[in-house]
Amino acid sequence: MAKVIQSEADNFNVGDYVTGVLPWQKIITVDAQKVNPIPSKEVPLYLYLSVLGMPGMTAYTGLLEIGKPKQGETVVVSAASGAVGSVVGQIAKIKGARVVGIAGGDEKTSYLTDTLGFDVAVDYKRDDFAEKLEQAVPDGIDVYYENVGGALSDEVFKHLNQFARVPVCGAISTYNNTEAELGPRIQETLVKSQALMQGFVVAQFSDYFKEASEQLAKWVSEGKIKSEVTIDNGFNQLPTAFRKLFSGDNFGKQVVQVSEE
Amino acid sequence: MAKVIQSEADNFNVGDYVTGVLPWQKIITVDAQKVNPIPSKEVPLYLYLSVLGMPGMTAYTGLLEIGKPKQGETVVVSAASGAVGSVVGQIAKIKGARVVGIAGGDEKTSYLTDTLGFDVAVDYKRDDFAEKLEQAVPDGIDVYYENVGGALSDEVFKHLNQFARVPVCGAISTYNNTEAELGPRIQETLVKSQALMQGFVVAQFSDYFKEASEQLAKWVSEGKIKSEVTIDNGFNQLPTAFRKLFSGDNFGKQVVQVSEE
Repeated sequence: MAKVIQSEADNFNVGDYVTGVLPWQKIITVDAQKVNPIPSKEVPLYLYLSVLGMPGMTAYTGLLEIGKPKQGETVVVSAASGAVGSVVGQIAKIKGARVVGIAGGDEKTSYLTDTLGFDVAVDYKRDDFAEKLEQAVPDGIDVYYENVGGALSDEVFKHLNQFARVPVCGAISTYNNTEAELGPRIQETLVKSQALMQGFVVAQFSDYFKEASEQLAKWVSEGKIKSEVTIDNGFNQLPTAFRKLFSGDNFGKQVVQVSEE
Repeated sequence: MAKVIQSEADNFNVGDYVTGVLPWQKIITVDAQKVNPIPSKEVPLYLYLSVLGMPGMTAYTGLLEIGKPKQGETVVVSAASGAVGSVVGQIAKIKGARVVGIAGGDEKTSYLTDTLGFDVAVDYKRDDFAEKLEQAVPDGIDVYYENVGGALSDEVFKHLNQFARVPVCGAISTYNNTEAELGPRIQETLVKSQALMQGFVVAQFSDYFKEASEQLAKWVSEGKIKSEVTIDNGFNQLPTAFRKLFSGDNFGKQVVQVSEE
């Protein structure tokens, strides 16, 4: 997120706030088409970096366009307390699904059930993860919203129901591996459960962004969707904050605040 | 396939031929709803076990309902000389795709290009498989019709294009493993290529069977789809013939003929 301090574009004025995929830089010159204006300052600005920004769009479109949860189905989401996962779970609840979140540590799992209203939260850092997951999905899994990958997800795949859908948003557990990490190949699982698995990048759903942002803003204003944020202060905190995405030490959307505003 | 020798069902007469998933048994009593009549004896009966039977339905529905190949796209199929794969490749050609078949040995690869009209055939049993595959798909892969699984398919996945589709029909290379065989996990590949992978069993597409069988019969009668068969004679050949499915020693549809007819 950035503030416009000089503009040659008709649709941006000095003082406007914009979001975009921007470099870690204090002052930048950017093509007006590469940034999006923030409609109002009525809600905290950081919401436009989480539930009302790309993470919210990613949650909304991946869950609803690929996962298509139905009333009474079981939805599992990994990295469930994160900026994307937390919104996925809350939308799935709104759609009438039973929602199981996977996260690491007591603080995050309690947040999922106590604050966000998930039905069950399972701690992947505990030794009894596989057992607790099995107990959490007595009717199997209809939608698994995949953010994490790795051994965690291998356990989830064991419980896929017939015609399950798996939107694959990311595999953050594996991004820092120098070699491909090995696991059970997925083909037999997909045939047995006649399941669909689809990788996506949010940009492919740009036609839905307007609908998604309006709907999300409505749910936020009605208190149906809550959004957590971890704010670190100061430009020099950027590397530390970035590393937290991989260690799991952040909570909700990781934001670095570089200005008083 | 069986011949009706006694019938209490209105729609079956003595002398009719039927197909179905039936046990290895010389005389059986079967529910009339579990078998399908063969419309005519104008074509060789074994075609109702291959291109005009379940393998043909499997090829047609998986390719067209999940793979959705478009004119000019590249379609790769594994177990390409088999009862399903050979039909997949020929339908993809009819739809205007560039078709690459993967099979084992000179005889099968030559059959694909010389008889069935595939654009390229790649021999997975040769040491240069990975290299030859790469050369065979200079524009990447848009549809991979998966019959085989294992290390062979890991190589194929390296070449998936953006928005590729992977109908997963089977993973015959792994069925006899007692433990899950390990390979690179698929999540990162799916996200990078925004690809769709979907396991299916032909029964899910039963609504399309009528359309599929009529279209396939038309293509067969026009000479656009050819079908190969390996016939072993004698009821006692069943176990040997079954094992050939896993060793790759059959050619096209494996049939055991137990009667003169």
